[in-house]
Amino acid sequence: MGALDEGHYDVELENTLKLSCTKLGVEEEPEIQASVRVLLQGLGEDINREGIKKTPLRVAKALRHATKGYKQNVKDIVEDALFPEAGLDNNRVGHAGGAGGLVIVRDLDLFSYCESCLLPFQVKCHVGYVPSGQRVVGLSKLSRVADVFAKRLQDPQRLADEVCSALQHSIKSAGVAVILQCCHIHFPAVESMFLDSLPEGWIKIMVSSGTGIFENEGANIWSEFFSLLKFRGSIADKIQKRNSTNHWCPSLASSINKVPSNVGTVNPSMVSAVISILRSLDEDPLRKELVGTPARFLKWLLNFQNCHMDMNLNTWVQKKKKPQNSNGELKFSSRIHSELSLPFWSQCEHHLLPFHGVVHIGYFSAEGVDPIGKSLLQSIVHFYGFKLQVQERLTRQIAETVAPILGGDVIVVAEASHMCMIARGIEKFGSSTATIAVLGRFSTDAKARTLFLESLPCTNSF
Amino acid sequence: MGALDEGHYDVELENTLKLSCTKLGVEEEPEIQASVRVLLQGLGEDINREGIKKTPLRVAKALRHATKGYKQNVKDIVEDALFPEAGLDNNRVGHAGGAGGLVIVRDLDLFSYCESCLLPFQVKCHVGYVPSGQRVVGLSKLSRVADVFAKRLQDPQRLADEVCSALQHSIKSAGVAVILQCCHIHFPAVESMFLDSLPEGWIKIMVSSGTGIFENEGANIWSEFFSLLKFRGSIADKIQKRNSTNHWCPSLASSINKVPSNVGTVNPSMVSAVISILRSLDEDPLRKELVGTPARFLKWLLNFQNCHMDMNLNTWVQKKKKPQNSNGELKFSSRIHSELSLPFWSQCEHHLLPFHGVVHIGYFSAEGVDPIGKSLLQSIVHFYGFKLQVQERLTRQIAETVAPILGGDVIVVAEASHMCMIARGIEKFGSSTATIAVLGRFSTDAKARTLFLESLPCTNSF
Repeated sequence: MGALDEGHYDVELENTLKLSCTKLGVEEEPEIQASVRVLLQGLGEDINREGIKKTPLRVAKALRHATKGYKQNVKDIVEDALFPEAGLDNNRVGHAGGAGGLVIVRDLDLFSYCESCLLPFQVKCHVGYVPSGQRVVGLSKLSRVADVFAKRLQDPQRLADEVCSALQHSIKSAGVAVILQCCHIHFPAVESMFLDSLPEGWIKIMVSSGTGIFENEGANIWSEFFSLLKFRGSIADKIQKRNSTNHWCPSLASSINKVPSNVGTVNPSMVSAVISILRSLDEDPLRKELVGTPARFLKWLLNFQNCHMDMNLNTWVQKKKKPQNSNGELKFSSRIHSELSLPFWSQCEHHLLPFHGVVHIGYFSAEGVDPIGKSLLQSIVHFYGFKLQVQERLTRQIAETVAPILGGDVIVVAEASHMCMIARGIEKFGSSTATIAVLGRFSTDAKARTLFLESLPCTNSF
Repeated sequence: MGALDEGHYDVELENTLKLSCTKLGVEEEPEIQASVRVLLQGLGEDINREGIKKTPLRVAKALRHATKGYKQNVKDIVEDALFPEAGLDNNRVGHAGGAGGLVIVRDLDLFSYCESCLLPFQVKCHVGYVPSGQRVVGLSKLSRVADVFAKRLQDPQRLADEVCSALQHSIKSAGVAVILQCCHIHFPAVESMFLDSLPEGWIKIMVSSGTGIFENEGANIWSEFFSLLKFRGSIADKIQKRNSTNHWCPSLASSINKVPSNVGTVNPSMVSAVISILRSLDEDPLRKELVGTPARFLKWLLNFQNCHMDMNLNTWVQKKKKPQNSNGELKFSSRIHSELSLPFWSQCEHHLLPFHGVVHIGYFSAEGVDPIGKSLLQSIVHFYGFKLQVQERLTRQIAETVAPILGGDVIVVAEASHMCMIARGIEKFGSSTATIAVLGRFSTDAKARTLFLESLPCTNSF
């Protein structure tokens, strides 16, 4: 924590102000934009294609925003907001505000970028401190200071330690406690995605950090903090131990940490491009946590390589014997079959940020035709997920591909959470997106649509 | 909706940029600051007191931020983010993306300021549209456009209409639908707060607006939208009817709409100050919805008038007969009594914004002494709530006041949600704050503290 001396926070704010003011134009951040163009070309994309023409600019803006904490100054943020408040001195134990004068702010939504893989992760941050020296800090400053450190390339434990230490230095309290609940997207490798076992939900981790009276992890003040967070039961056991060898970032998990087949063939200019981005963000690509980051990020990114292979399933369909009526028309049952909650991973082509969620497919199957296997539908969903995408197109492509297999009458709903709605200035935590595509009878039969839509699961736990 | 012609959105962005760039200094927004000083003085405050010395500046910044939508331009926001997307044309019904090509973004957290009373309200915004003309809009733009109109003085129905109309104009879709779920703080009048019936939670309202294929409220596309929002049951009935005479803002509710006793004596300079603030925000104080706003805002604000009356309850305590042991010491039972979830309303002295929540009080009562009446404790909680406050002080003051009545061993926990954590740049929706003060045995007995803290209700529904 040598880097956490007070001098560390004395960086001039001016640059940041200037940056957030200038409306970034096409000529801004030329190094990052050039690197992003290299990455797009490495994915086999046409960088003049309408949807991604401005992606380099958008990525540059998003990355700059996500790392603006490097240029922010904790002292400036806090200094203005220390208020004298009687009766909160530590020496007055037995007066209100003595040992019990804990102040907590819970459920602050933040995001940060994972230093291991350069993907954003979500943070629910809880901060507590015990005022001393007869002064309290404005509540919003706890959030603003946490954000300074979240807006850097991070690891959950270091983020907790930096927030804790910075608050301790700047508000000089009797003790500061920080709990972070972090969520990282799963990191599937395209080659393992067509197997049966799929990761679900998010990778979650809880970390803590304490100074002063919170320094001892067993201190009773911690259980008071947990009580106020409405954490019940043995929470302390759920907190990741310091120096644990568990890697939380899935790019470091041993099972997928062997060099995947696709990275062997990576254009070295893509690696250089990621290194150049790190350098543009004022990071040191040789910092030990970052050395493997370009390869890990590319392992993720190359899942979304453009492939021109057509997904032609006609052969498969024609092998099936289809029952026909006397006029030679197919007979369809009136029952809607459905496959719900097929997971998918994709990468937003506008921001090069992940979006992921589930796809629901409904169809009327022809009488006598076997229901379609779930694994085939899942493969189609993955096929269209593993590209640079927009959710609207993904939904349509899946519908158009499954329609000939499923008899023509299909409805496809995609539900997803988009990192680009969180990990940029917009920061709309908890928002999600749904899209529909319909073909055949579902495009005219409102009742059938409603029946299917009402059958969708009510949780948004993707 | 004449004001919603396209020209309406052509205001120059430049001013806004300049404003958000300048770090507001003490000399910025002098009119608003001067008006806030008049209001503080009208509340009987010393404007040089440490905690409120910079309140005029903070209020000016918060108000300017909350109304920056007046200077924003929807066209600029959307124009860059319309992307060509095949297969989504309305004319191709029967192809994926035909009538079913609905795109929705749900659960966007926004806040707005109520034009009736100038208090902020929270908005959960859901937007849907059906792309046409072979183009889709970047998902985040739906949120950004909604925010342009939220950042004005608003009424829920007008906000929904303006967002809907602006999106329709700018993305030229087959139809746009907007649903807003709005939450407004209750608006107690200080004189009625000491009665038994207390309002709980929030005032909630749901409004909708639709254009194009959503214009007809009975259209089937609406039920598809509701299904995707995971709204089940008869939602349409819960949506506020247009031109309903129900006033959602509690300042307009008939029961408290008679001029309260305290407004009769309002310093006319306070009214002028609010009018001047409205004018500084580029609003027209003579707009019919705003004419009564200064009086209504002051009705709220004057609840928090500084009163120098001491809350001396010694007389009350001395009337009680206290059991003593042979040494003349009081005997205390080992059982913790508690009064949980006593509601309070208060006003943050740093930002002149409401915070409200609940107070929990725990104490060891002397043997033979009757448990203290809940209504007395509630009155004390209100007494300290109805001032310009910070939560830390409120908690301590309640503890110090109830201690002599309750035998000296008390623990007080306040839990609150602060508008200043939402209705400013920080926008930390869903965050809440807890503070503790302890006296007597609770300051040394960790077990007793833990026992009480673990007994607190787990919901944060204040």
